[in-house]
Amino acid sequence: MSQGEVNWEQVYEWDVKYYLHVKQAASEYRFLPVSHTEGNCVYLANGMKILDFVSQIIGANLGYKHPRVTAAIQEASERIGFVQELFCTEYRSRAAKLIMEDLLGPDAWAGRIRFVSTGSEANEQAFAIAKLITGRPNIITREYAYHGSTSGAAGASRNRYYRSTLASPDSGEIRDVPNFPGTGFHVVPAPYCYRCSLGHTYPSCKQDHGTLACIRVSENLIRTIGAETVAAFVTEIFYGGSAIHPPAEYIPQLREMTRRLGILWIDDEVICGFGRCGKWFAYQLYPDATPDIMTVGKGMNGCALPVGGVVISKDIARELEKFRYWSGSTHAGHPVVAASVAAAVEFMIEENIPEVAARKGAILDKKLRKLAEDHRCVGLAQCVGLLGGFEVVRNKKTKEPFVKEDRFATFAGDISKYPEVMISEKCILQGVMVGSAVPNTIRVAPPLTITEEEIDFGMDVIDRVLSEIDEMCSG
Amino acid sequence: MSQGEVNWEQVYEWDVKYYLHVKQAASEYRFLPVSHTEGNCVYLANGMKILDFVSQIIGANLGYKHPRVTAAIQEASERIGFVQELFCTEYRSRAAKLIMEDLLGPDAWAGRIRFVSTGSEANEQAFAIAKLITGRPNIITREYAYHGSTSGAAGASRNRYYRSTLASPDSGEIRDVPNFPGTGFHVVPAPYCYRCSLGHTYPSCKQDHGTLACIRVSENLIRTIGAETVAAFVTEIFYGGSAIHPPAEYIPQLREMTRRLGILWIDDEVICGFGRCGKWFAYQLYPDATPDIMTVGKGMNGCALPVGGVVISKDIARELEKFRYWSGSTHAGHPVVAASVAAAVEFMIEENIPEVAARKGAILDKKLRKLAEDHRCVGLAQCVGLLGGFEVVRNKKTKEPFVKEDRFATFAGDISKYPEVMISEKCILQGVMVGSAVPNTIRVAPPLTITEEEIDFGMDVIDRVLSEIDEMCSG
Amino acid sequence: MSQGEVNWEQVYEWDVKYYLHVKQAASEYRFLPVSHTEGNCVYLANGMKILDFVSQIIGANLGYKHPRVTAAIQEASERIGFVQELFCTEYRSRAAKLIMEDLLGPDAWAGRIRFVSTGSEANEQAFAIAKLITGRPNIITREYAYHGSTSGAAGASRNRYYRSTLASPDSGEIRDVPNFPGTGFHVVPAPYCYRCSLGHTYPSCKQDHGTLACIRVSENLIRTIGAETVAAFVTEIFYGGSAIHPPAEYIPQLREMTRRLGILWIDDEVICGFGRCGKWFAYQLYPDATPDIMTVGKGMNGCALPVGGVVISKDIARELEKFRYWSGSTHAGHPVVAASVAAAVEFMIEENIPEVAARKGAILDKKLRKLAEDHRCVGLAQCVGLLGGFEVVRNKKTKEPFVKEDRFATFAGDISKYPEVMISEKCILQGVMVGSAVPNTIRVAPPLTITEEEIDFGMDVIDRVLSEIDEMCSG
Amino acid sequence: MSQGEVNWEQVYEWDVKYYLHVKQAASEYRFLPVSHTEGNCVYLANGMKILDFVSQIIGANLGYKHPRVTAAIQEASERIGFVQELFCTEYRSRAAKLIMEDLLGPDAWAGRIRFVSTGSEANEQAFAIAKLITGRPNIITREYAYHGSTSGAAGASRNRYYRSTLASPDSGEIRDVPNFPGTGFHVVPAPYCYRCSLGHTYPSCKQDHGTLACIRVSENLIRTIGAETVAAFVTEIFYGGSAIHPPAEYIPQLREMTRRLGILWIDDEVICGFGRCGKWFAYQLYPDATPDIMTVGKGMNGCALPVGGVVISKDIARELEKFRYWSGSTHAGHPVVAASVAAAVEFMIEENIPEVAARKGAILDKKLRKLAEDHRCVGLAQCVGLLGGFEVVRNKKTKEPFVKEDRFATFAGDISKYPEVMISEKCILQGVMVGSAVPNTIRVAPPLTITEEEIDFGMDVIDRVLSEIDEMCSG
Repeated sequence: MSQGEVNWEQVYEWDVKYYLHVKQAASEYRFLPVSHTEGNCVYLANGMKILDFVSQIIGANLGYKHPRVTAAIQEASERIGFVQELFCTEYRSRAAKLIMEDLLGPDAWAGRIRFVSTGSEANEQAFAIAKLITGRPNIITREYAYHGSTSGAAGASRNRYYRSTLASPDSGEIRDVPNFPGTGFHVVPAPYCYRCSLGHTYPSCKQDHGTLACIRVSENLIRTIGAETVAAFVTEIFYGGSAIHPPAEYIPQLREMTRRLGILWIDDEVICGFGRCGKWFAYQLYPDATPDIMTVGKGMNGCALPVGGVVISKDIARELEKFRYWSGSTHAGHPVVAASVAAAVEFMIEENIPEVAARKGAILDKKLRKLAEDHRCVGLAQCVGLLGGFEVVRNKKTKEPFVKEDRFATFAGDISKYPEVMISEKCILQGVMVGSAVPNTIRVAPPLTITEEEIDFGMDVIDRVLSEIDEMCSG
Repeated sequence: MSQGEVNWEQVYEWDVKYYLHVKQAASEYRFLPVSHTEGNCVYLANGMKILDFVSQIIGANLGYKHPRVTAAIQEASERIGFVQELFCTEYRSRAAKLIMEDLLGPDAWAGRIRFVSTGSEANEQAFAIAKLITGRPNIITREYAYHGSTSGAAGASRNRYYRSTLASPDSGEIRDVPNFPGTGFHVVPAPYCYRCSLGHTYPSCKQDHGTLACIRVSENLIRTIGAETVAAFVTEIFYGGSAIHPPAEYIPQLREMTRRLGILWIDDEVICGFGRCGKWFAYQLYPDATPDIMTVGKGMNGCALPVGGVVISKDIARELEKFRYWSGSTHAGHPVVAASVAAAVEFMIEENIPEVAARKGAILDKKLRKLAEDHRCVGLAQCVGLLGGFEVVRNKKTKEPFVKEDRFATFAGDISKYPEVMISEKCILQGVMVGSAVPNTIRVAPPLTITEEEIDFGMDVIDRVLSEIDEMCSG
Repeated sequence: MSQGEVNWEQVYEWDVKYYLHVKQAASEYRFLPVSHTEGNCVYLANGMKILDFVSQIIGANLGYKHPRVTAAIQEASERIGFVQELFCTEYRSRAAKLIMEDLLGPDAWAGRIRFVSTGSEANEQAFAIAKLITGRPNIITREYAYHGSTSGAAGASRNRYYRSTLASPDSGEIRDVPNFPGTGFHVVPAPYCYRCSLGHTYPSCKQDHGTLACIRVSENLIRTIGAETVAAFVTEIFYGGSAIHPPAEYIPQLREMTRRLGILWIDDEVICGFGRCGKWFAYQLYPDATPDIMTVGKGMNGCALPVGGVVISKDIARELEKFRYWSGSTHAGHPVVAASVAAAVEFMIEENIPEVAARKGAILDKKLRKLAEDHRCVGLAQCVGLLGGFEVVRNKKTKEPFVKEDRFATFAGDISKYPEVMISEKCILQGVMVGSAVPNTIRVAPPLTITEEEIDFGMDVIDRVLSEIDEMCSG
Repeated sequence: MSQGEVNWEQVYEWDVKYYLHVKQAASEYRFLPVSHTEGNCVYLANGMKILDFVSQIIGANLGYKHPRVTAAIQEASERIGFVQELFCTEYRSRAAKLIMEDLLGPDAWAGRIRFVSTGSEANEQAFAIAKLITGRPNIITREYAYHGSTSGAAGASRNRYYRSTLASPDSGEIRDVPNFPGTGFHVVPAPYCYRCSLGHTYPSCKQDHGTLACIRVSENLIRTIGAETVAAFVTEIFYGGSAIHPPAEYIPQLREMTRRLGILWIDDEVICGFGRCGKWFAYQLYPDATPDIMTVGKGMNGCALPVGGVVISKDIARELEKFRYWSGSTHAGHPVVAASVAAAVEFMIEENIPEVAARKGAILDKKLRKLAEDHRCVGLAQCVGLLGGFEVVRNKKTKEPFVKEDRFATFAGDISKYPEVMISEKCILQGVMVGSAVPNTIRVAPPLTITEEEIDFGMDVIDRVLSEIDEMCSG
């Protein structure tokens, strides 16, 4: 059936009846049918055009249906289709080479890569490998972290609600998955300076030889558990789901500490990687802060197809290579997916996408700062590369959160007055898509292919919408 | 780059250097480069043609690069590419309708479906939903089961080695992932009548009102734990990874027992589903044995792209719909994947694929029985639809296993004399691909598009290879 | 206050109001005040005399307030009172020597002993030591096992209800401790031949080289998990709580299997030890079946004071001795408790208590067999040393259980018609105390100081009571 | 055998050969034989007299072999000896009444008490009850906490080494119990102001409405996990094992927070209870800070016999009473132990022991402060009631820890230069026993029966010893 002739009533009927919708109770069902996409925009069935200002969920980094990637998918589908991981394809080999040699090669730490199907699976692989290599059972994660939805990945995820809970829109009831968060996950504070959970004000939190309090307390927890029982510390560099940007010292100190304690560092670059933050990978913003294991995902092919990957260091690779690693996954290394990755990376190299992101990011950053100046409701605005966002407050001076529960919100009950909900909805009505996973926060993270005109348009819409929110502020 | 001009030396160089290979230590690396596929065959770079007699890993059900499916992938890639799960696409809506209404509709139990990216993710979803709906922490699984590689799915997987262990080819050392198998998984005996782990001989194991001993002992274990603490019992119908076919009474009795105890039954049809066993889903071989939750995967699109799905019953759907289900997964419901599923299912309906599988399966079955008659090394041959296989023994009369460790093999040390390894290698040299995940077992599960001539060819090769194995038998 | 002048109304008032009673809801509270004990009898405040035919809970092995033990308690209390474990006392040194040299010396396996305060603590020690020595996380336990009430000990306990559940007398509601049974416990079938959970009939269950089916399936489970992940297999020899006596081959085959797989065997002799079964320890009934770790408890001093102990093999001791074992427990090795143990063991050696138990046990055994012959309601009677009991059935021929739920009973709802409850109550009204932790089972396990006359009296009462139960049988 | 005629060579021989010694490798074995005790002193076999300045392990609160308690033990041993918990004895009834009515009655919160055999068992009971009542799986505990040695209690214990680790004296190797710390334990910072792990300086850590940073971060962690998944928060008031005294606001704020979040507070008074801190229970130092569950132990009878207890609130009791609570423990409510408790409490009431402790504590406090003034090596001295201690530093001004690893020390390798070790040994040679479980800390916690002269003597010895330590300081 051609989309041009789509019977949208029928599409609606089937979708409302048969699909298991997430994040909305049946009574809240909203039908958002997409007829097609073009450039950085989504077109709804009713003809409405929406500029994507958040790369869907910070993944559609190359805008929509990038022709190079689409062509590669077609080529691989017509030549091979599918073979299992024991077979080598030119696509997989080339995709591996591009990432390992062209993107990571200069840093010299990375040993091998495996392709899996999602970011969750990538983190599952990372945890399994870290535990196998060290022989240790524990993983350190952080407040507000999100690392995926499968059991292990969800065990490392600690934003309040986003771990497969059931939240009632009516009664406020919330149900956790019994036995969550599983065994062996331990949580330390986030480097969330705007609202330091340790009660500090950056940079006065630095002590001794300049150590951040959140690093110190993380080390304390690890030593309380016993460093020799800890396999790895997993972090994003910049929180993709929770929009937290650590202070400059954080990653270097984290790396120093994990190295000193003999603990692996797993750098989850599922969101930050592949140019988003102005470097190929966000760790490259810090000299000498190379990971032991790095997980990647969506940015690999701009979400053209489901994909994830795990990169292990040369040291770990040398150890792992001695063994048969019995890890089965039908779709790992899928040729069509690998082809999409190879094409996307080749394009990104040609365009020097990190440099593009850095340049456009500077523009976005300026506009976000202006926003923060102009609006009573914007308490914090921040941007690195094209990963930006702002936090909505009730009172700028006192930093009073707009939604009081803030990052601990259960997302049960009435959430219609959450800034995230109000702003997303108001923006989309004006043709701009933003959003986040935190009540008081809006992420602004357009495709890396965004134009300056589109940035202007998007920010103008946000600006107008925030003026409405300002009215609700007390400060 | 066109595959026609592929520089295979370079492909080799990158693959051997950069890819993290599973199931083989670096010292065992084998370069198996695929130049293209055609019909039910894989072509290696050196021109060698291999008939796929096991659908890769029982997933390439429609042979290779099925034109309907390829076209759908192209169409969706060119129209939409990617949108997140909150948007509805015609592809997803149609794929859901086809499965829920056309395939499952007549059985009336199924309420809703969600698409994820792999079978592992499907089982993770199933476990989370079962625990959320019941509020209970425990999952029952079986000896020799395989349900995937992510933490939760692996926790339910109990074949000896296939759970991300590291097995040394030299020293025989084996390392398990610390903390495996996580909390809340409990294992009961498999319905493996050929070598009943309870020491029975079917059908004399039946007692009381005809209850199988393995069902009874499963119930005992559940009642030992307390039925009110058990969320679900997860099974495949026919073991995909371990090639075990239960006796006819097993599934009906299992269903009766789980219903009586108030425990959900999760039917993992990732391998058995979509026509493989002569019905759309294997549970349909049994009257009234409808699942509470069904997981699906590879067969949905013949592995054209990474995919998985979870189908929940109407009862569960009614409960779940009252809540916001906060389960994030970037690629869930991916439009291009959904398009491939819709196209594949439409094709399968048109061709009445289950009927095709049943018909060709009867032919295969006959040949497998002949094999068992003709060869001293074949202790057991079995086939349902196009899911067949045989077990190699040292002595047919005594049933002495060929490899003594049998299903408990660690796959460390020298495995070159494992029937699975010997037969796979000998067959592939003669142009036929078979294989399994069990030392003494060979699975024969060709694409559902297999021709009778191909069946003949494949079985002839196997027949010749088995004659060599016969020489190693003592019986 | 002298007991002679006790104000029993006040005792009642305080007990009903302030004590947290177990096993009975407040509405079921029964006031059973003890004024004093004498010999093998308890005297209630109303003057009623009760012959103890079950050694309280198979622990008061020397009858009541044994003068030798009482004197030792007094002596130690007046000389030392208390010092911590870092100090050595003559009592502890002597108690250790008596057990290690005089009781266990001839078997040559035992390396060291530590005294703790309860059987639960002894099993906790055993599990910790087994895990530390092997570096492995898993413990194998059995259906219907009881090893104590603290978290680890309870994790190994698998009788249906006896693990700190809350069972409503009214609604039948049952609540398990969330997260029970913890991580790392795996359950295998019990050697309960009368109702084999595997569906076998002894001895036809024996296969291959005579291996019992329950041993074989236990080995299968262990190999499914991976023997190299299993620290230990814990068993009693004869189930104290659940009154199951394994067939003669069981323990030798268990020992052979655990040795072959490199798994430690923890022999829980908290109930069976110190002469109860006609040997100093029940393992001594089997040639060459020495444990790796043995736990002991109540019999050590006849329950004169809270006590437990863990005995480790010479091999384990040699390894443990190389380390500082940081295990704190204020009361471990308590001098007054140690004195009571030393005195009790000295007395038991002098009297050759195992021989006494064997001799009197033969008498009891004869009478129990007679009981089984005479009563329609007795399906099974068994006795080893002075550890005996019988199982009540509805129909002797069909073995129909009296209470249908049998060993899976939740003990919620109305339990007044449980044989265990009815018989205990009827017997106590006639001056004899029996009981068990299983609905259909009565344990008969008098103090080892029981006289033949007392055995006659006790068995006569039971005989009369069973005649009433016979009326309720259908067989 | 009378102790007067003890053959100490034989005692040595047996002890060194047969007893499993903790905290010291075999190569470090020290023979410390006790011949008798008297008053507040221990006498070694060689005639040496040692003043107990730490109540053994802060448990021998009434000095040694208190005549009232000894008499009660004798009386109960001669009258009853042992009966199980289903029988009521006058001793148990009276002991329960004394604690519930006379000690706790005025506070009106406490509903019921159960007696068990150790503090570990008391905490195990508390955790099980908290989980059962709330239906929730998680327990919050704190850095440096010690709550016992059985699995559950150890799971809540987070001082670095004191959880049944094996620590090599030679290689520095340390081995944790695999699977420690089990499922469901989550750790938050300690209120250790002298070295705040959050990097604050009291009282500037107070924010908002005066909330301590450590309370705030605890609340954050709980909300990260989800308050509705948390059964209880367990704390001591003053750390018995780790010698940490929280600031005055801590307990009130903790109580407010747990009440507000609907989480139970378990107050572990095993060390602080029964007068030690100048009140019957340490929570009474804070208005309105009544616990939901309180655990008690050693102080109940001054360690005369193994004992523990759990007190539940009226609210919890009301709920628990509706059910049969199936929690078995042979020695729970042991008559002889109960008699010792009743006698000890009666004595303590007559003497108004809390007032005594407060009064003598004031004297001790003054002397400890003097110590801190006089010695370069004393960084912190603190005392509440008769629970005091001091922390040894390398440099008073910089607070440089004496042993650098401080509270994270593994206690493997050479520990001979730990202040705890040096000072304990030097003091004992001069006839005074002190000690702790932390490298840099010495606890001073004499029996509540200590005389002023004994305080003088003990402090003089410590004073002299510290002068030697001063020499090792740099500040």
